[in-house]
Amino acid sequence: MSTGFFPVERIPFEGPDSTNPLAFHHYNPDEMVMGKRMEDHLRFAAAYWHSFAWEGLDPFGGRTFDRPWYPQDAMENAKLKADVAFEMFSALGVPFYCFHDADVRPDLGNFRENTRALEEITDIFAQKQEETGVGLLWGTANLFSHRRFMSGASTNPDPEVFAYSAATIKTCMDATKKLGGQNYVLWGGREGYETLLNTDLKREDAQMGRMLNMVVEYKHKIGFKGQIMVEPKPQEPSKHQYDYDVATVYGFLKRHGLENEVVVNIEQGHAILAGHSFEHEIALANALGIFGSIDMNRNDYQSGWDTDQFPNNVPEVALAYYHILKAGGFGNGGTNFDAKLRRQSLDAEDLLHGHIGGMDTCARGLKAAAAMLEDGTLDGFVEGRYSGWNSDTWQAVLAGKSSLEELAAKVEAEGIEPEPRSGRQEYLENVVNRFV
Amino acid sequence: MSTGFFPVERIPFEGPDSTNPLAFHHYNPDEMVMGKRMEDHLRFAAAYWHSFAWEGLDPFGGRTFDRPWYPQDAMENAKLKADVAFEMFSALGVPFYCFHDADVRPDLGNFRENTRALEEITDIFAQKQEETGVGLLWGTANLFSHRRFMSGASTNPDPEVFAYSAATIKTCMDATKKLGGQNYVLWGGREGYETLLNTDLKREDAQMGRMLNMVVEYKHKIGFKGQIMVEPKPQEPSKHQYDYDVATVYGFLKRHGLENEVVVNIEQGHAILAGHSFEHEIALANALGIFGSIDMNRNDYQSGWDTDQFPNNVPEVALAYYHILKAGGFGNGGTNFDAKLRRQSLDAEDLLHGHIGGMDTCARGLKAAAAMLEDGTLDGFVEGRYSGWNSDTWQAVLAGKSSLEELAAKVEAEGIEPEPRSGRQEYLENVVNRFV
Amino acid sequence: MSTGFFPVERIPFEGPDSTNPLAFHHYNPDEMVMGKRMEDHLRFAAAYWHSFAWEGLDPFGGRTFDRPWYPQDAMENAKLKADVAFEMFSALGVPFYCFHDADVRPDLGNFRENTRALEEITDIFAQKQEETGVGLLWGTANLFSHRRFMSGASTNPDPEVFAYSAATIKTCMDATKKLGGQNYVLWGGREGYETLLNTDLKREDAQMGRMLNMVVEYKHKIGFKGQIMVEPKPQEPSKHQYDYDVATVYGFLKRHGLENEVVVNIEQGHAILAGHSFEHEIALANALGIFGSIDMNRNDYQSGWDTDQFPNNVPEVALAYYHILKAGGFGNGGTNFDAKLRRQSLDAEDLLHGHIGGMDTCARGLKAAAAMLEDGTLDGFVEGRYSGWNSDTWQAVLAGKSSLEELAAKVEAEGIEPEPRSGRQEYLENVVNRFV
Amino acid sequence: MSTGFFPVERIPFEGPDSTNPLAFHHYNPDEMVMGKRMEDHLRFAAAYWHSFAWEGLDPFGGRTFDRPWYPQDAMENAKLKADVAFEMFSALGVPFYCFHDADVRPDLGNFRENTRALEEITDIFAQKQEETGVGLLWGTANLFSHRRFMSGASTNPDPEVFAYSAATIKTCMDATKKLGGQNYVLWGGREGYETLLNTDLKREDAQMGRMLNMVVEYKHKIGFKGQIMVEPKPQEPSKHQYDYDVATVYGFLKRHGLENEVVVNIEQGHAILAGHSFEHEIALANALGIFGSIDMNRNDYQSGWDTDQFPNNVPEVALAYYHILKAGGFGNGGTNFDAKLRRQSLDAEDLLHGHIGGMDTCARGLKAAAAMLEDGTLDGFVEGRYSGWNSDTWQAVLAGKSSLEELAAKVEAEGIEPEPRSGRQEYLENVVNRFV
Ligand SMILES: [Co+2]
Ligand SMILES: [Co+2]
Ligand SMILES: [Co+2]
Ligand SMILES: [Co+2]
Ligand SMILES: [Co+2]
Ligand SMILES: [Co+2]
Ligand SMILES: [Co+2]
Ligand SMILES: [Co+2]
Repeated sequence: MSTGFFPVERIPFEGPDSTNPLAFHHYNPDEMVMGKRMEDHLRFAAAYWHSFAWEGLDPFGGRTFDRPWYPQDAMENAKLKADVAFEMFSALGVPFYCFHDADVRPDLGNFRENTRALEEITDIFAQKQEETGVGLLWGTANLFSHRRFMSGASTNPDPEVFAYSAATIKTCMDATKKLGGQNYVLWGGREGYETLLNTDLKREDAQMGRMLNMVVEYKHKIGFKGQIMVEPKPQEPSKHQYDYDVATVYGFLKRHGLENEVVVNIEQGHAILAGHSFEHEIALANALGIFGSIDMNRNDYQSGWDTDQFPNNVPEVALAYYHILKAGGFGNGGTNFDAKLRRQSLDAEDLLHGHIGGMDTCARGLKAAAAMLEDGTLDGFVEGRYSGWNSDTWQAVLAGKSSLEELAAKVEAEGIEPEPRSGRQEYLENVVNRFV
Repeated sequence: MSTGFFPVERIPFEGPDSTNPLAFHHYNPDEMVMGKRMEDHLRFAAAYWHSFAWEGLDPFGGRTFDRPWYPQDAMENAKLKADVAFEMFSALGVPFYCFHDADVRPDLGNFRENTRALEEITDIFAQKQEETGVGLLWGTANLFSHRRFMSGASTNPDPEVFAYSAATIKTCMDATKKLGGQNYVLWGGREGYETLLNTDLKREDAQMGRMLNMVVEYKHKIGFKGQIMVEPKPQEPSKHQYDYDVATVYGFLKRHGLENEVVVNIEQGHAILAGHSFEHEIALANALGIFGSIDMNRNDYQSGWDTDQFPNNVPEVALAYYHILKAGGFGNGGTNFDAKLRRQSLDAEDLLHGHIGGMDTCARGLKAAAAMLEDGTLDGFVEGRYSGWNSDTWQAVLAGKSSLEELAAKVEAEGIEPEPRSGRQEYLENVVNRFV
Repeated sequence: MSTGFFPVERIPFEGPDSTNPLAFHHYNPDEMVMGKRMEDHLRFAAAYWHSFAWEGLDPFGGRTFDRPWYPQDAMENAKLKADVAFEMFSALGVPFYCFHDADVRPDLGNFRENTRALEEITDIFAQKQEETGVGLLWGTANLFSHRRFMSGASTNPDPEVFAYSAATIKTCMDATKKLGGQNYVLWGGREGYETLLNTDLKREDAQMGRMLNMVVEYKHKIGFKGQIMVEPKPQEPSKHQYDYDVATVYGFLKRHGLENEVVVNIEQGHAILAGHSFEHEIALANALGIFGSIDMNRNDYQSGWDTDQFPNNVPEVALAYYHILKAGGFGNGGTNFDAKLRRQSLDAEDLLHGHIGGMDTCARGLKAAAAMLEDGTLDGFVEGRYSGWNSDTWQAVLAGKSSLEELAAKVEAEGIEPEPRSGRQEYLENVVNRFV
Repeated sequence: MSTGFFPVERIPFEGPDSTNPLAFHHYNPDEMVMGKRMEDHLRFAAAYWHSFAWEGLDPFGGRTFDRPWYPQDAMENAKLKADVAFEMFSALGVPFYCFHDADVRPDLGNFRENTRALEEITDIFAQKQEETGVGLLWGTANLFSHRRFMSGASTNPDPEVFAYSAATIKTCMDATKKLGGQNYVLWGGREGYETLLNTDLKREDAQMGRMLNMVVEYKHKIGFKGQIMVEPKPQEPSKHQYDYDVATVYGFLKRHGLENEVVVNIEQGHAILAGHSFEHEIALANALGIFGSIDMNRNDYQSGWDTDQFPNNVPEVALAYYHILKAGGFGNGGTNFDAKLRRQSLDAEDLLHGHIGGMDTCARGLKAAAAMLEDGTLDGFVEGRYSGWNSDTWQAVLAGKSSLEELAAKVEAEGIEPEPRSGRQEYLENVVNRFV
């Protein structure tokens, strides 16, 4: 029996010419792209927190939304929230959702009762998953909203907070496993610092490294088959977050022996805040062998904080999927919308508009990316550009069979004075524009 | 015999009350700070390139300076430039200088002649070093100004450019060793990309890793005792530089097995462009064990490009030296000014003003940092803040003797609900202000 | 009878050598600076909102503070809050405070009761002002926190919100007048937009212009003698705020005929977010004749949002006061700390540390600025640099007595080929460093 | 007789399915859009400076290009450059071009000879315009590249530079008029400052205001019918440019009585550097009545300097044209590409790729914008959102017939407590995506 929260029960695919705002114009789950269903490529997930738990606050104002499941501090309301959430997942036809513990259960004031509440609500989720066919892309623990985490979770100067965080992660990993989650994510909410004046970087790094190792150990112990993922972000809420960007996370994993155990969940908005393009972070993660999944929510280019908006720029999204497809597509990962409505978007239908727009944008981006790959012009250009390296001579140099002296001698002997060749950036950008 | 370029031959120390603009007011080389001469702490170096080779161009305008050693394409002028350079080093009393090959010799159009020219001019440098007592803090190769390097040096798609770069580095390492250089630096001028559309990140990473390994191998072969240093920068001239920041360089070193062979030369301006504070980069490099040296030139906080200005903010400089002193001070490293005059600062005396101001600022910063350390309040606060971790119980947790389940059980059994404690940021900032 | 909230009742001046963290080391109200008491120069104010009404929330977490006057929705707690607030003002010896209506009274759910509550609490303030000698630097209306203002106050598409805002401003102006406020401020909280797609810039400009004119009309009608001030900010909470920066506000005032009626309250943090230095905004406001007052709270240079931190960098603060003193100092304006504690700074004493540090920093900055002015080197340099313009010939050109043709003829006839002269930036920065 | 520089003589329109990189796929000059030829809507211009005068320098490297008209200091080469330039204009079929004096003539070392050289080369241009049908969109003076302008042109502390600038502007206005230019542009190259320490903002404002008034006076005197335009930019080359953004320029015009005489030429890249979206600047200029023309070259979102790239993102371009079309389209203005090749794009064909891509992107953007306008959903939404203001009551309030007291009385009497309505941002973004 429907809660009646949403104006429609199912968003149909109506094709590009439809002007029905509550229909998909591009996302057609069964359409084949490069031999695979669009749904299986994109693996969409909706986020519980922004859609249902966030009340519209910002640093300068309070709640703007008005939902039947407010206030969120009672189990009855949590159940109503769950009903509405799964109605949205079904209406959109997303195959997955994601959640933090704190999104789904009320805060009952202590660890024991919160754990029981999480178990109770996730039992309900399990049943709803079965009824709807919606699955869990990833679970995660909220280790940043409560004041106990104000100085970090695993990196807290107080070891009891470390223990509390470990305990909380355990309950969330248990819930994720129970729900058949495809991945488990750690976003370093307040793992960072406000001021170096009260911070010991080395201690905090050791604490964080130990925690992530415990997570991996526990994964193996309980036989969780999903990926463990870290989500980089450069700053906010803290002045400096330890998981700054993909390159920083790579160094951290390598330092703690985790580079084969943990991958990254890359968010477009966080890439932007770190001074990178989204496709840079994806391409880099692929080059380093740690690509996992994406949070496909954009940042406003003129705002210096995390705006978490639904994606709407097809050319940008196409470049992201180009790098994902080129590296073989998602495995366990997927396309999560860690996106929130603008706080002026008050209505139930706005939740649908946000997701419909995001999903259509991604569908167009995916198709464009596939077309670029199938066309092959871009890839061929890159191959050709480096082809000078393919000879035995130069492969030997790369393989460590040469030295500065040898190369210096060669340059002098052969009178090498290299002539530059055009990088053809404008041409390549035009090639992309044939497809987006 | 002096060239007469500068209005004075020696900048005296006259103390803080002097109003003589061509005197030091705070930099007093022999003054003892924490049991060491100020000169031996700071280990100042002046940069040949910005001071003598840069002609005042910017992207919107040409040369503003007018120097007797222009045009710079003849050996005679290079020699005059060297005379003036060492006159400035002597006038300032800096113990060190730094240079690229392209700063000091004319470009004679091919590798062989350029190498000979470099040998000739560095023979002259050797003699001048002996006469003046000025030493070489580090040498480096300019692998970015000439058009052959437009698409990178070691990361070039053309292997001949890789070879040319290797050959050039060899000649610069040879020169550095000949001159008793304390370090050899690699700044990744165009090691990066303009567009991912024409770039293969994985290939370029392999090329860059191989080159740095060859540098380390050559260092050992020739018995060069100095440190090999990489200088991080996030962008400019390329859209994305591979040596983005300290964390990124750490990951790169680790990936290529170089983390015990190579350290970083951190520039304040580059830290700012990467979204970090200078002290963050220093503290991080120390925590990771790869701190080497600094380029003490600030970036304008409102400009999005590399402004390379002389430092002038004592509180900021003090925090940088605080982290350096806390980790034991410079070894082979030092304080280089990779700083250029504003292009409107046309006169010889402006070169002196820039360096005098920078050196006095650093001297004040160093003394303040030493006082903070000797006072001990800051360090003591940090120690105390983490002291909960010092018990055997929690050390065992850190040492890997615990697990998520154990900690979860402990939290439930003991009813752990941690109470946050003030981080005292404002108090700590006030403590710093007692010293700056 | 004291509430006992703070550990001390009065912060004494103990001079620079004291290590008592609950004493002033530089702020000595009666010390004479350029013939005026330091207190009368600086005219400090503390902000009611950040100090007493903000509970430590940020976009990723809830309340961290724990105050005896929480929850803030009852009049009794508002009175306790007022007791503590005036205890802090007295302890610090600040001559002024500032407030919004929403900081000081509970929200009783409708306009009429809120107005009565504001009257009641401000009657209490009046009595406390008399008892303590603390005065009101400025009052203002909070037209951004409640959800009714989510789409703007005067610029709202709904005229009823315009009316509600006008009504609210009236009550706040009445309260400000009653309390002898020296100024009345309008900060355009949500006067801006989230997306141009739903926004009519021209309508909103007309609405905002009309509102400000009504404010000025009402000021004259009730005989309020203070200044009306607008506080610029470029973004946050909205994507684009209409009062972007000083230059933008100037254009707005000019467009609506208000440039002689309204001045600006400039915040350091907002200057930074707009891409300007603080001293730029002050110098520009002075050049345009619209300088009013300052909010002396800094922004973190690496964070892209409004961090509202207490100032702690003396050289920066000194440059701000230099431009203020050079233009004659504050009239009705003053130095307000629109600054909040870091959310980890939980304790009553942290409120004292924040303000003590800020006040000492300003005291040092003021003294340095005064010394620069008395020294005269800087001013003299600028005068000299433009002195070529002082002749009758060139004054006539400026006065409109010449034309392009005439000047072209003169250039050709006289063979004018101007030779550039050094701008001496490094020298001037060194001069500043003699004083800070 | 062709110079043979370009591989083709004419870029044909071949439609979206063509894969010929040297063809237009979307730009079809005669295609009708909203009842007007596409060419007449877009009014494309190519920029002489970036295409032909810039040699590929950046702050870290020298010339990368190799052109038959180098070196550029001889009149013969200037003529060859002109031949090639008009060949490109013809090949692309752009109806317009733009130039600075310094782009087109050699620098012969003094004002008189430079003026003669400019006359000579522009006589040739006049003939080429007649032969090719290409016209001049705007002329402008380069008052920033030569060292004489290092401290500004009209804002220089040296009045002789002011005179020299006036004289130069006169010659450029004369040339523009001779060539039938549609507009004359002033971009404030170095009208700004490096440091406030040597700058008198008020003097410089007066100087700049006087110069612009002289420009307007001269325009009227010689009967030039085109628009006088100012091009805003926030920074670079100077730390702070006086023509920061549209709002700042508006205030400047208003202050100097020029708001009805001068309009703005808005560049996408400069909007981005100022913290605005491009469409913001266009919409604002339209709201203020000072919109003139655009420089349609994008800035890289991750680079903090002026990257001047050809546009390639259709959705962004569409929003720009949406605001232009909504306000009636270009009058004398047009779409100039103030865009340069990446310095690795060495070849003649790269110049074609850059312009073809830019023109196709604009053509798609224009058509999308026209479709949005013809559809009317967006406009209708905005109208409806503000429709509450259309009643006589509220129009009277806006017209000044009300006051704070009256509105306060009304709010209390009527018990007004406004209820917010959704702003529908996500829905509106989806509407846009139907067209791009
Ligand atoms: Co985010
Ligand atoms: Co995310
Ligand atoms: Co630099
Ligand atoms: Co450097
Ligand atoms: Co603020
Ligand atoms: Co403020
Ligand atoms: Co530009
Ligand atoms: Co332009």
